[in-house]
Amino acid sequence: MNNYAAVLEYDGTGFKGFQLQPKNVRTVQGELLKALNVLLNSFCDFSYAGRTDAGVHARHQVINFKSEKELDLYRFKWKLNCILPEEIVVKDIKKVDGSFNARKDARVREYSYYVVNNNYQSVFLKRYSLMITKNLDLEAMRLAAEKFVGTFDFAAFCNNNFHRGFTVKQVYSFKIRRFGGSLLVFKITANSFLYNMVRIIVGTVLEIGKGQRSLDSIDIAFKSKDRKRSGKIVPAKGLFLTGVSY
Amino acid sequence: MNNYAAVLEYDGTGFKGFQLQPKNVRTVQGELLKALNVLLNSFCDFSYAGRTDAGVHARHQVINFKSEKELDLYRFKWKLNCILPEEIVVKDIKKVDGSFNARKDARVREYSYYVVNNNYQSVFLKRYSLMITKNLDLEAMRLAAEKFVGTFDFAAFCNNNFHRGFTVKQVYSFKIRRFGGSLLVFKITANSFLYNMVRIIVGTVLEIGKGQRSLDSIDIAFKSKDRKRSGKIVPAKGLFLTGVSY
Repeated sequence: MNNYAAVLEYDGTGFKGFQLQPKNVRTVQGELLKALNVLLNSFCDFSYAGRTDAGVHARHQVINFKSEKELDLYRFKWKLNCILPEEIVVKDIKKVDGSFNARKDARVREYSYYVVNNNYQSVFLKRYSLMITKNLDLEAMRLAAEKFVGTFDFAAFCNNNFHRGFTVKQVYSFKIRRFGGSLLVFKITANSFLYNMVRIIVGTVLEIGKGQRSLDSIDIAFKSKDRKRSGKIVPAKGLFLTGVSY
Repeated sequence: MNNYAAVLEYDGTGFKGFQLQPKNVRTVQGELLKALNVLLNSFCDFSYAGRTDAGVHARHQVINFKSEKELDLYRFKWKLNCILPEEIVVKDIKKVDGSFNARKDARVREYSYYVVNNNYQSVFLKRYSLMITKNLDLEAMRLAAEKFVGTFDFAAFCNNNFHRGFTVKQVYSFKIRRFGGSLLVFKITANSFLYNMVRIIVGTVLEIGKGQRSLDSIDIAFKSKDRKRSGKIVPAKGLFLTGVSY
């Protein structure tokens, strides 16, 4: 059995998330499986690095799949891109060790959140960013971001109960950069993320940037393990999976 | 009479160009006039810096219009952006001297053309760039670009006969930059441009980058003043009006 890894990019606007769901629900995985089924008669063991939610985009998602076929990878990638919907593209594909698993072997996942801090929304960024007109205090947000770096119980910063007992994650870095005056990029890396974790953390930090919340409130939220103590979730459209390291 | 200048951004995909046309033809100017008519009871003397063609985008178009109304500019801009279609946004608006004319007073216009030189097209750039899979010789293209800088008769590099006799233009600069490996940006500035001039020049330079045309052929095209001697026009979707200086 050959094992193939691929790097994907997709615009999540028209999908109900990455993960396969019952038929009639359009997902990235569903579209990928359909296209792979056309080109490979059979395959098994499809895995992926990041389970992005409905509306979340990816510039660098990693998957792997197994096939008995020996593929001409340049041609296979070209054909796959012809079959896939226009919102999904395979950037790279290669043969990997049989034991490689895109999900289990991922050590670091990187997500980026885009905010336009201005009184109008760029026509080219509006599908991919959140507009905030209120002036944001970048220094206060950077101090807030530092509080999330480390190994903590993120129970207060996720939206699902099925994580209970497994909500400890290690955040490696959390940087906020400003580009061209009004574009802010929040970039966060961790071993893995809980359900809605990035969007709740960014929402919390933005409340600090607006002066609606104190720095201390983050410590209180961490201690409480209570979702009610953290900030409002920000919309999916500003979020991108931007990297996976193995 | 008050004179107002505005800076606009638009995604040209859904428009038959900037310039107003008979009704039922959707243009950027048509949409702007409709929106201005809603907010101002009457106005006159609408002017603009760049007559972008069908499918061409703008990150920085400048217009001016006159009105007897004394406008609260922050509120007026906000309202205008609420009324305009989602592919057009007013970035900035200010009161200017009564004699200011966005077209006549423009000294330098800057256009940028985006090429993705790769074997797949980014889902986020495909509406805004031309994909070329063949390897492009950047050094040869830069030498070619230099040949367009200066004051010349660009008759061979435009698509219309009504320019005849007025085809001398001054190109101030023409730079080609590579970003992140596969994105190439062709940036050209001139006092003004002829019909389809940027797209024909970029098409000619790309043929040199592909090794399909010699550098000398540019001199021959210039001397001939014959459109048949220059390269194929590239698609509108990769072209942006990116700057106007006064």
